Amino acid sequence: MANTFKCIGLIGKYADSTVLGTIKILSDYLKGRQLEVILDESTAQLLPGHGLKTASRAAIGASCDLAIVIGGDGTLLNAARSLISYEICLLGINQGRLGFLADISPHDMIQKLDSILQGIYLEEQRIMLHARIERAGQCISESDALNDVAVHKWNVARMIEVQTYINGQFVHTHRSDGIIVSTPTGSTAYALSSGGPILHPALNAIVLVPVSPHTMSNRPIVVDGDSQIEIIVKDSNQSHAQVTCDGQINLSLASGDIIKVRKKDQRVRLIHPADHDHYKILRAKLHWGGEL
Amino acid sequence: MANTFKCIGLIGKYADSTVLGTIKILSDYLKGRQLEVILDESTAQLLPGHGLKTASRAAIGASCDLAIVIGGDGTLLNAARSLISYEICLLGINQGRLGFLADISPHDMIQKLDSILQGIYLEEQRIMLHARIERAGQCISESDALNDVAVHKWNVARMIEVQTYINGQFVHTHRSDGIIVSTPTGSTAYALSSGGPILHPALNAIVLVPVSPHTMSNRPIVVDGDSQIEIIVKDSNQSHAQVTCDGQINLSLASGDIIKVRKKDQRVRLIHPADHDHYKILRAKLHWGGEL
Amino acid sequence: MANTFKCIGLIGKYADSTVLGTIKILSDYLKGRQLEVILDESTAQLLPGHGLKTASRAAIGASCDLAIVIGGDGTLLNAARSLISYEICLLGINQGRLGFLADISPHDMIQKLDSILQGIYLEEQRIMLHARIERAGQCISESDALNDVAVHKWNVARMIEVQTYINGQFVHTHRSDGIIVSTPTGSTAYALSSGGPILHPALNAIVLVPVSPHTMSNRPIVVDGDSQIEIIVKDSNQSHAQVTCDGQINLSLASGDIIKVRKKDQRVRLIHPADHDHYKILRAKLHWGGEL
Amino acid sequence: MANTFKCIGLIGKYADSTVLGTIKILSDYLKGRQLEVILDESTAQLLPGHGLKTASRAAIGASCDLAIVIGGDGTLLNAARSLISYEICLLGINQGRLGFLADISPHDMIQKLDSILQGIYLEEQRIMLHARIERAGQCISESDALNDVAVHKWNVARMIEVQTYINGQFVHTHRSDGIIVSTPTGSTAYALSSGGPILHPALNAIVLVPVSPHTMSNRPIVVDGDSQIEIIVKDSNQSHAQVTCDGQINLSLASGDIIKVRKKDQRVRLIHPADHDHYKILRAKLHWGGEL
Repeated sequence: MANTFKCIGLIGKYADSTVLGTIKILSDYLKGRQLEVILDESTAQLLPGHGLKTASRAAIGASCDLAIVIGGDGTLLNAARSLISYEICLLGINQGRLGFLADISPHDMIQKLDSILQGIYLEEQRIMLHARIERAGQCISESDALNDVAVHKWNVARMIEVQTYINGQFVHTHRSDGIIVSTPTGSTAYALSSGGPILHPALNAIVLVPVSPHTMSNRPIVVDGDSQIEIIVKDSNQSHAQVTCDGQINLSLASGDIIKVRKKDQRVRLIHPADHDHYKILRAKLHWGGEL
Repeated sequence: MANTFKCIGLIGKYADSTVLGTIKILSDYLKGRQLEVILDESTAQLLPGHGLKTASRAAIGASCDLAIVIGGDGTLLNAARSLISYEICLLGINQGRLGFLADISPHDMIQKLDSILQGIYLEEQRIMLHARIERAGQCISESDALNDVAVHKWNVARMIEVQTYINGQFVHTHRSDGIIVSTPTGSTAYALSSGGPILHPALNAIVLVPVSPHTMSNRPIVVDGDSQIEIIVKDSNQSHAQVTCDGQINLSLASGDIIKVRKKDQRVRLIHPADHDHYKILRAKLHWGGEL
Repeated sequence: MANTFKCIGLIGKYADSTVLGTIKILSDYLKGRQLEVILDESTAQLLPGHGLKTASRAAIGASCDLAIVIGGDGTLLNAARSLISYEICLLGINQGRLGFLADISPHDMIQKLDSILQGIYLEEQRIMLHARIERAGQCISESDALNDVAVHKWNVARMIEVQTYINGQFVHTHRSDGIIVSTPTGSTAYALSSGGPILHPALNAIVLVPVSPHTMSNRPIVVDGDSQIEIIVKDSNQSHAQVTCDGQINLSLASGDIIKVRKKDQRVRLIHPADHDHYKILRAKLHWGGEL
Repeated sequence: MANTFKCIGLIGKYADSTVLGTIKILSDYLKGRQLEVILDESTAQLLPGHGLKTASRAAIGASCDLAIVIGGDGTLLNAARSLISYEICLLGINQGRLGFLADISPHDMIQKLDSILQGIYLEEQRIMLHARIERAGQCISESDALNDVAVHKWNVARMIEVQTYINGQFVHTHRSDGIIVSTPTGSTAYALSSGGPILHPALNAIVLVPVSPHTMSNRPIVVDGDSQIEIIVKDSNQSHAQVTCDGQINLSLASGDIIKVRKKDQRVRLIHPADHDHYKILRAKLHWGGEL
């Protein structure tokens, strides 16, 4: 049987006061169950008089065994990147529309939490990526990504020219608006918009998806999750290409820089209600046909 | 029978000295045929001691009946935009690879010109677009485009949200990396990379192609060439979206700006050798299967 | 001002008794307005004791000025093909889901008809295609199509090899599951599923859409509506390729046959309520984003 | 170090005499190296006076440690299916164009074989699929596939309606021309034409690719190679849908049949020259950009 959770962090969508009502309900409910509740310090600033213990993201990671993230998939991406070094599990409450990651809605969260806190839940492990920019053999910047690492044109109308290598093997040179290196989690996000396939979340695989490639046969490529991916932007200058992680973190590039992407050793531990059905979420979000 | 050409402008690829040899051969050949030759003044700067009459782009448009453009499709796009107000015809010599517009190669250009100057040629008229940015009802910037007007994210990793109207009718709101409004000429350029169809060059039609749209059913839409197209970027700020014409001219946007795109009254007069075959160029450039 | 309609034909979905209730309501309503009502003879067989005048499809075409078609888009495609030689207008009532052609629902049809019969409506003209199979210079079979003429593999797992010509010019040879020649009307049907663009219904254009082409650059091509299209299936034998019109009429092929497709001289006259909005139907059926 | 091969089977393209010259050269060469050579009995019928030992496919599988397959990828697919129960390795000589599987050309095959027979080669293992049709709980037909199992419309112009399940979980109902269940090997074949991604050959994954799906968000789905896939064609009748393995084996369907697809326990052992480079083949066959 799964462990039950004793210390719970609450992380709200950044600078968004619409999540505060949900946070209040959650904290009252959790305290009513005699659980320790710690509020993320940036969320705490929006909620004067909350009467809760607050802590930095890192301290939440170190102390809590579950973080409840209130917002949407974007908030959960952010929380996952900041907490990946810790053992903590993540649970997403979507404030607006159903999310792929934040799949619990506020209106039935208490009922779902009743079961989860009894240890009745599904734990799903998701791979994450780590991107580092190397210049003259030195790492000059780096970031993690749960969805995707995108290398794309920036501040320019022209296509960029990109060289890709997988495990040291040359794959191709191609001109495009960019290339997305996506996890299975990210395969239903930006990569899907650019023509990528849907990867089952449990698959140990990475997909490379070119964005508006000049050559139409530059199709998405799915490789093993343990592949070492290297991307070089030809003749880039600072303003013409950038690397973006999860659409949230930007890393600058200069000419000759190498972007190295690999899977992280740690996995995100995502908690779902026991009746979680990934295909049901796909059907709902992608307007697929359901059972006849 | 077609007119013959008396006064010929020569326009080289911008700041590219690799075209100078071809220009020298052309000018010697044309002078040998007693034709008036005028060199574009920016090209002239690269060719000291050319001994030719030089003129501004506008003066070439006003004086010449044919402009020979030496470079590639990009150079011809530039020439077309700058000469659209004049009666002048355009002929493209490709310095490197076969182009869709610059379809004559230097190695047989003299042979092709022999026929063309005898009046044996094909004149093809191509529609052009005009884009204007309106702010509070006033035009704040504008540009022409022979290929396409692209409204796209700029300096930002997030998708932009775009509203489209055709002839005053609301079409849709969609989130994407941008939207391309393309002529038939541009349908084999950026629009094709983004999933658009190929439009026959003579078609009086415009195609709207979303770039990496969030919703997969936001497919390319082909409308009549006389349609009035309006695009509004929601909540844009100066740095988050721009308009680009032919990938060469950038126009900035601010929140609330309206981008209006319509066909120009004038058409580009493109000259081809009499044996020009558009499908043959498509087969060569797109690696299509040829005759068995 | 538009003409009003005096003699109205009623055509129900073939062999489908679910439309009979709607037909009864319609006929009572129309007779109550002192209009002449003629029931399609095949529909009449499903409705004993209807008390209406009945006639063949051809006689309806010759006598009536409006045919109300009750069923779905498929029923309207059938009616359009059978009535294209006549001046008659067509109006579609969708029995099930909203259709692109049959855009009036039974629940508000009476209200819509009140206006239409007063002459307040929109008439839209749609182009149709004519396909003929030629063997040794002779036409051996032919059919019309409002949506599309598809040349596709039949009874075989292998790809077929197809040669296309437009206005006598060779376009390409390609291997695929088939090729769809579609009108603007058909561009939201099978052609869209196969990656074709959406053509505005009023556009005088035809789109050729390959189905699962072996070469990825074999993209949809949009040509002028007056183009003569010829398709030759290489080394076909009777069972390996067929031509299908609107997904409803099949024409067999033998080796060496030529499929010729051209626009018909007549257009379908489609009647819509005055507030008809094509983009609204697209938004609804394709789950596009609406106004914010 | 790799084993060397002692007994070698030769399998030519079915009923194709163009491979006979290559087979003669190969058999002379192999006998010259004192190796045992066995000719496939169906190939032997094309080559009277060959003077070689002949055997059935099964006997070749049981006796030989290497089969050299002369033809193209299609011939190798056939050989792989017939030899999958044996330990035998496969090597492909392409008679015509470079193949993904048959990647050695006749003009340098002797040089390549010199190294391979010395034990200098690359062995690559490829997953295969097994498809079985169940009717009322009984298997009524079955086949293996190295490329793909396609469930597709047959003898009909209409779309088919398909229900998919993965590991017993309902995925979706969709209408389309069919659905392709493909291995990584097949991902560069029919699945690619229908919009699927390229899967690295070593990936333990299966991709489901819908063909011309009615709903555009029905995109390819990549799942773990050990997934149990079930497909049900709604209201099929014998002539309206079939299952095809590798485009070569057809299995009929009746209403209510369930198509079950799973990975086989055995893998195909494909032999390549030591300098084999999968990406180089992709670059050549898909016209990708090479090194600058």
